[in-house]
Amino acid sequence: MITLEQLNRMSVDEFVAALGGIFEHSPWVAQRAAAARPFISREDLHAAMCSAVAAATADEQLALIRAHPELAGRAAIRNELTQHSIREQRGAKLDECSAEEFAQLQTMNAAYNARFGFPFVLAVRGHDRQSILAAFAQRLQHEVDHERTTALRQIERIAAFRLADTISAPLGAQIMAMHEQLARFSDDENNLTCAYLTAAHRATAAAIRDYMLGAGLDTHIDAVGNVVGRWRSGIAGAKTLITGSHYDTVIDAGKYDGRLGILLPIVVALDLRQRGLHLPFDLEIIAFAEEEGVRFKSTFLGSSAVAGSFDARVLDSIDADGVTMREAMREAGFDTDAIKDIARDPATLAGYVEVHIEQGPVLLDANRALGVVTSIAGSVRKLVSIRGVAGHAGTVPMPLRRDAAAAAAEIVLAVERRCAIAPGLVGTVGRLHVPNGAINVIPGECELSIDIRADEDALRDAAVADVLAQIEQIGARRQVQINIRRVLEAACAPCAPTLQSQWSAAIARITGDNKPLHLPSGAGHDAMKMASICAIGMLFVRCGNGGISHNPLETLSADDADIAARVFSDFLLHFKADT
Amino acid sequence: MITLEQLNRMSVDEFVAALGGIFEHSPWVAQRAAAARPFISREDLHAAMCSAVAAATADEQLALIRAHPELAGRAAIRNELTQHSIREQRGAKLDECSAEEFAQLQTMNAAYNARFGFPFVLAVRGHDRQSILAAFAQRLQHEVDHERTTALRQIERIAAFRLADTISAPLGAQIMAMHEQLARFSDDENNLTCAYLTAAHRATAAAIRDYMLGAGLDTHIDAVGNVVGRWRSGIAGAKTLITGSHYDTVIDAGKYDGRLGILLPIVVALDLRQRGLHLPFDLEIIAFAEEEGVRFKSTFLGSSAVAGSFDARVLDSIDADGVTMREAMREAGFDTDAIKDIARDPATLAGYVEVHIEQGPVLLDANRALGVVTSIAGSVRKLVSIRGVAGHAGTVPMPLRRDAAAAAAEIVLAVERRCAIAPGLVGTVGRLHVPNGAINVIPGECELSIDIRADEDALRDAAVADVLAQIEQIGARRQVQINIRRVLEAACAPCAPTLQSQWSAAIARITGDNKPLHLPSGAGHDAMKMASICAIGMLFVRCGNGGISHNPLETLSADDADIAARVFSDFLLHFKADT
Repeated sequence: MITLEQLNRMSVDEFVAALGGIFEHSPWVAQRAAAARPFISREDLHAAMCSAVAAATADEQLALIRAHPELAGRAAIRNELTQHSIREQRGAKLDECSAEEFAQLQTMNAAYNARFGFPFVLAVRGHDRQSILAAFAQRLQHEVDHERTTALRQIERIAAFRLADTISAPLGAQIMAMHEQLARFSDDENNLTCAYLTAAHRATAAAIRDYMLGAGLDTHIDAVGNVVGRWRSGIAGAKTLITGSHYDTVIDAGKYDGRLGILLPIVVALDLRQRGLHLPFDLEIIAFAEEEGVRFKSTFLGSSAVAGSFDARVLDSIDADGVTMREAMREAGFDTDAIKDIARDPATLAGYVEVHIEQGPVLLDANRALGVVTSIAGSVRKLVSIRGVAGHAGTVPMPLRRDAAAAAAEIVLAVERRCAIAPGLVGTVGRLHVPNGAINVIPGECELSIDIRADEDALRDAAVADVLAQIEQIGARRQVQINIRRVLEAACAPCAPTLQSQWSAAIARITGDNKPLHLPSGAGHDAMKMASICAIGMLFVRCGNGGISHNPLETLSADDADIAARVFSDFLLHFKADT
Repeated sequence: MITLEQLNRMSVDEFVAALGGIFEHSPWVAQRAAAARPFISREDLHAAMCSAVAAATADEQLALIRAHPELAGRAAIRNELTQHSIREQRGAKLDECSAEEFAQLQTMNAAYNARFGFPFVLAVRGHDRQSILAAFAQRLQHEVDHERTTALRQIERIAAFRLADTISAPLGAQIMAMHEQLARFSDDENNLTCAYLTAAHRATAAAIRDYMLGAGLDTHIDAVGNVVGRWRSGIAGAKTLITGSHYDTVIDAGKYDGRLGILLPIVVALDLRQRGLHLPFDLEIIAFAEEEGVRFKSTFLGSSAVAGSFDARVLDSIDADGVTMREAMREAGFDTDAIKDIARDPATLAGYVEVHIEQGPVLLDANRALGVVTSIAGSVRKLVSIRGVAGHAGTVPMPLRRDAAAAAAEIVLAVERRCAIAPGLVGTVGRLHVPNGAINVIPGECELSIDIRADEDALRDAAVADVLAQIEQIGARRQVQINIRRVLEAACAPCAPTLQSQWSAAIARITGDNKPLHLPSGAGHDAMKMASICAIGMLFVRCGNGGISHNPLETLSADDADIAARVFSDFLLHFKADT
């Protein structure tokens, strides 16, 4: 294993010697990329090498493609493969081909070479013989120019996998670079929006799959679009620790919400493998396909499927264009009948942990990089309509008024005041509106929303009860009619104390902070769904820029990502399942 | 003079004897209307008689038209006119025709009779010889059917004038009935909307003009559409007391706002005349064409023209269809160059008084029919924008929030609290709005309006200053940025103490209430404009239904209208100009 730091300090000759085989038999790629040093991440290095290929002549590109061996071809038979190629072809078990498969591959190799003038190149990692043959058959249909581009893209993927096998990089910088890569896939060219099963969403899933493959994980995309990477311990009866988060985003999103909980574990898993370490349990990293509910108003889709609580009725929900979720899934090649099979057997699980950017200012304010989540707040949401009496702003004396907006103002402050008395409790009036309000008319109506959350149901319910009692008093005193509609009532999902203490211990070991901050999560997370099938634990990572989230201004520092990765790594190495 | 009460009790024969001449030589109209008794107003009686005509056969209707004398025709020459006709033709000074005019009339009479087969009928009240000749020439162009309808409409007008000359009715019921009549002219068939210079507005002006003519006033419509009726004292150098209000309405209006101040004085003037009383000063009743500003956003148009403060720039303002005010006025036949001539010379004025429905609940709440206005409040209006920091409703602890809506709520209550400490002071937040508010987002922005009014500028300004200081404190404490934009600052228009005491004395004499309620007007009125050229005084009449105004639910009782009319009448009879 070579470190990025070492690569950055090498002479050009040493650099080329170290990386000459990343692009098969084409040391010129490393040679040309060397000038772009220093590299701060493997992504950075990979991008520089890909740029060198892109800037090369057409003849050089063709020579690069031709430098690759055929799959199970003559070079393999003659034992002339590079070490990289041997590993790759073995990974796809091409060395275990049946006679028929072998014959079929030879026939296709010949046909392909005759049609395109270069060998069939495929990054076989993640493939099996069957999917290789399917890809081969499909690509034989391509136009020549298209196929040449496809071959170069496959060569770039192969290079990325080879770099992951060869080069270790600083975890934080690596995590940041991967977030930047994913943020390039968007439904909207002006901002980051990644809604369920759009082209950008599927490209994001493919990129995450490659990251998982690069980390050596056994990877697949399930029937709702979750990208699942498994690191099996090989120990019979070993339980599975699941970690993950979602890769879809809100509209005009930040880069880190959800994705940090996917990319950080991938980087950590690769790092552990690069260091030759093994885990005594099965680790599963799941990139949940959908949590935000932007396209179909169907939140927690991915995690509910894994938790066995997928509600099939959402398949009939439609997006803004009238497309049903069922149609969108079929178009993506998913078998909706197989969704039920995604559900995990709780008996096989050791727990679920999720790393997530805080989406709030608590850690920032407390000057801590990390925090242990105590509970995911359940929220109570209400819509409040107030009906007073409209009147002329000049002609109705103050004591005779029944002003709906003044009643609303009292409610806003009552919510604020009541929810300020306990940490872990928050209350928000997010909507506030006098319909058809006019500067010279006493408001006859006012509408507002209330959202109250706490890390304990009892704490929240007491606050809700007090606020409702105050609203009743306000209505009676002001002689306005107040109508309250319940729109949501979700229970808290407490984090398992044993997982909280394991996070604390890991933070203490890595950072020396013996009293890590514990805080509730006010926002909902996939962990809420997972809580129904196993113990859950969450690690929050500091959110910069005042704690802004669901916004392009959401920020994460590479240092914080690095600390979080090291803590997560340590957590895994010391992990004991909740019993 | 016969009272309506007497008419209601008469035998049919007596009734026909009393009213047989209201429709010229056609006692059958009274005969058929008698069955509809009892009548509660002259309008009611007139409507019943007109219904009898409408229900008559075509031959009967033709006979009715033919029963009328030609203008300055044979019957006049032969001295065969009814007393009504003699008075009417003399009113238009047809007995003073020049030889040429007389010859022209005879020629047209002959041509008209030849064309239509019936004599030319015109309600000549309000006409002079020139306008009669113009109308005659125009109507000669009509189709026969159209002209027949026109003749019947003129006969109905003549009947209304004759009834006003003959029948006295209870003032309150009369006032109510006239409001109902005017409310039938609307721009919108589903509600009462009467915007400047629409067809409904012009029909309303014509109806008011007829009411004024019926009351024996010297009437004209001026260059902005004000309908002006004068009752001259005949005393050399007598000053003029002006009274009036506006006849345009808001959209979906009540029936009484503005119009009460026009119709009540007309009814009172007629009553005084019927009683043979005279005033020792000139009385002028003005129905202002526009005060609400619905069509061109140009409030107080009519009264500003009379006050000499008409701003010619509003002529270029456009309505929703892109029509300029100038174009609308030209189409209505108004000479915009003559607007400046509308301005009254302050030296000729004895004052301006206005009767108006209160548009608020103070009199209702105090159980009084009438109130003396102390001052028309000047208002200060501000638009307030608050910028805090948006955030996730679940993730930002209460102490770290900079919630724009919570700051707004404090401002709403600060305005309410500060403006409640003095009678005559009112403060309203009519607009209140979190832009793009979402139930789970802490408001980063909030917008609101403030309207503060008082009957004294100093009282209002002190309240405004205190509210602004509180807003500053709120902004500083909550660390939100608050931007305040001034949109209006209008000074109070105090009512002249001598006029207030004359109102009080009249109320005391008529109602026995020796301590009449005095109250400020929170709403603006035409009196505000008139205050710049003379002393003003206002009488408020109780507004029913909780004080609702600018709304079809605005209500006025006939009893209150009656009391107000008797007080106004007494006020006029005792009036002394402010010196």
